[in-house]
Amino acid sequence: MPRTLSYITHLQIRFSDCDPLKIVWHGNYVKYFEDGREAFGKAFDFTYLEIYSKNGLSVPLVHLEMDYKRPVSFGETISIEAKMVDDPAAKIVFEYVIRNSANQVLCTGKTIQAFVQIEKNELQITMPAFFEAWKNKFLK
Amino acid sequence: MPRTLSYITHLQIRFSDCDPLKIVWHGNYVKYFEDGREAFGKAFDFTYLEIYSKNGLSVPLVHLEMDYKRPVSFGETISIEAKMVDDPAAKIVFEYVIRNSANQVLCTGKTIQAFVQIEKNELQITMPAFFEAWKNKFLK
Amino acid sequence: MPRTLSYITHLQIRFSDCDPLKIVWHGNYVKYFEDGREAFGKAFDFTYLEIYSKNGLSVPLVHLEMDYKRPVSFGETISIEAKMVDDPAAKIVFEYVIRNSANQVLCTGKTIQAFVQIEKNELQITMPAFFEAWKNKFLK
Amino acid sequence: MPRTLSYITHLQIRFSDCDPLKIVWHGNYVKYFEDGREAFGKAFDFTYLEIYSKNGLSVPLVHLEMDYKRPVSFGETISIEAKMVDDPAAKIVFEYVIRNSANQVLCTGKTIQAFVQIEKNELQITMPAFFEAWKNKFLK
Repeated sequence: MPRTLSYITHLQIRFSDCDPLKIVWHGNYVKYFEDGREAFGKAFDFTYLEIYSKNGLSVPLVHLEMDYKRPVSFGETISIEAKMVDDPAAKIVFEYVIRNSANQVLCTGKTIQAFVQIEKNELQITMPAFFEAWKNKFLK
Repeated sequence: MPRTLSYITHLQIRFSDCDPLKIVWHGNYVKYFEDGREAFGKAFDFTYLEIYSKNGLSVPLVHLEMDYKRPVSFGETISIEAKMVDDPAAKIVFEYVIRNSANQVLCTGKTIQAFVQIEKNELQITMPAFFEAWKNKFLK
Repeated sequence: MPRTLSYITHLQIRFSDCDPLKIVWHGNYVKYFEDGREAFGKAFDFTYLEIYSKNGLSVPLVHLEMDYKRPVSFGETISIEAKMVDDPAAKIVFEYVIRNSANQVLCTGKTIQAFVQIEKNELQITMPAFFEAWKNKFLK
Repeated sequence: MPRTLSYITHLQIRFSDCDPLKIVWHGNYVKYFEDGREAFGKAFDFTYLEIYSKNGLSVPLVHLEMDYKRPVSFGETISIEAKMVDDPAAKIVFEYVIRNSANQVLCTGKTIQAFVQIEKNELQITMPAFFEAWKNKFLK
């Protein structure tokens, strides 16, 4: 079993996130995944601004997948669970579960991010030292 | 080999679709996939408005996946290829390839849509007759 | 002096709300105004869902204006003040001030919403009774 | 009468631009204004990328206003007229009219952009020479 670490944040659905079917438009879940990663990063000292400025790396998404289980509408509150999953490659892997206030699953998904050396604009294929150290401290 | 049908549309990247890394934010590709489906539908007489009004069905996404290969920036023109792939199940399956003006692949992906009977708010698990007929006319 | 009522909510700037100049894209302030109205409504029992369901009215925007004073970037926290301003006409008038965490003004603005009778799809030009009652209870 | 110059572009309304009232969400008109400016710039050799790279200036919005006259829905085609209006100050002033395919006015508006010297991050209060020259060539 790979080591993992989870964080859950909450969000209230905006009117403007909903489509003519009166449910959240599917593309807006990408923002919710981003919110999940962001809240995870704040909670566990793993923020993009730090990764940029201290390590000269950007972390673009290379893969995204989502499965939609159930719709959600304006005014409801959702929970976003972002779970980092350890991976031997130089990649940041997150899995997500989004639930409504009755704890029913709305959407599950996964993202994979790569490390890019900003100055050279090159993919870094070896594990960055800061990330290895961070994982050893936080993942269980 | 499943029967397929492709359509290619073009789009110019908006300033507001780009993020602080000066490239299209990954979540905006979901809109480009939608644009691809929409252009496909207009070209081949397969539009959501018709599916709604004539057949009482909505076609929510149940699955989305994307692989990002290469970034693209403000002002560039991209092509969006949406290819419908025949599937024995009562699902609409599209595969996508997005390319820049040098014909380099930026992003590939896939969506799966289910049929929902709007009045009952129930998943339809048998193939809708109109879709079978449409496929027999258009897919090769 | 017209009667007024204010509410302040807070929000953390998303990466995807920022543009290639590394600041919030100006159009996203419209969402922040919406967030301000929404938080105001929750605080003071004035929500669109209630206005729809209990009074059969929708409240579309008929006017929006914004003045941009200072940019703001990813990761910063902003405050959104939404102030309802009493108006003798059958309109909902809000003024806004958005500030950064140093309390500097980023953006000011105003929206005007009209009342539309959903069933007739007609503008209501007389003051709705529920709104008059609400204003007498809350505005000072 | 100030000198002016107009350009009209067209756009088909996206499903994801529409809200639970089945009409374009008001905030999305800001993107349509941007599309109007962008098409104007391409037509008349006045693009932001050129202004940045050749003149070291960015042109942030400092004011935006919109009046909403009539809703529009998914699938309809709109026209966006962007009219530059001459102004003695060092500002770019555009007025907009958005119409549906029956030529009915949906929305009117105005934006004002200032010139900022990117390197100093300072507002430029004198008219940039390139803009004066451009206006003398194009505005009538």
